Amino acid sequence: METDRVMRSMLFDFYGELLTDKQREYFDLHYNEDFSLAEIAEQSGISRQGVWDIIRRAEAAMTEIEEKTGLIKRFAEQSEALARIKTELDELDKITDGRAKELVRSVSEKLEILK
Amino acid sequence: METDRVMRSMLFDFYGELLTDKQREYFDLHYNEDFSLAEIAEQSGISRQGVWDIIRRAEAAMTEIEEKTGLIKRFAEQSEALARIKTELDELDKITDGRAKELVRSVSEKLEILK
Repeated sequence: METDRVMRSMLFDFYGELLTDKQREYFDLHYNEDFSLAEIAEQSGISRQGVWDIIRRAEAAMTEIEEKTGLIKRFAEQSEALARIKTELDELDKITDGRAKELVRSVSEKLEILK
Repeated sequence: METDRVMRSMLFDFYGELLTDKQREYFDLHYNEDFSLAEIAEQSGISRQGVWDIIRRAEAAMTEIEEKTGLIKRFAEQSEALARIKTELDELDKITDGRAKELVRSVSEKLEILK
């Protein structure tokens, strides 16, 4: 199954440090720095197919880690809950004043940092 | 360095599924189910030292993963921010009424689930 762009970026953010140096480097060059397989192949002196195999293995390794740990899924669920909380805080901000409004804004700011 | 009880429990929660079956089983029996090394050794037919080596390697593997990814640290920082938010929400709960109090309670409940 094709991993979509967002998921691929989260996999690298969460688990990139668990890859081998080469896997991490080629994956990063290709997906984050937008280098083509041919360009990476030329720079590194291996075949285009060799580069692709390493990148594919990197993605498979990170996908397997996520399937086992479910940590990205856990974070994503938190983010959804935080988004729902944000909606309620926006309403609260409209109907409060004085100290209450101050507290609502302070909570909202802390939640922004969490996202 | 000795990993404390809370950290060990978080390591297992986050990364236990990345261990080998044997590492996970012995680690769980010893630290979560409170079996002694001698008891596990007897059940599994290997030496007490053998059991301990496997458990130690399990902990070292999970510690290394955390050192590389920092995901438990990231979660812990979120939890601290959530605790600070909770304090402000408790104050808000005291000084609001009507619809505002309703919203404050709804936000508090959602935060409880996140923890």
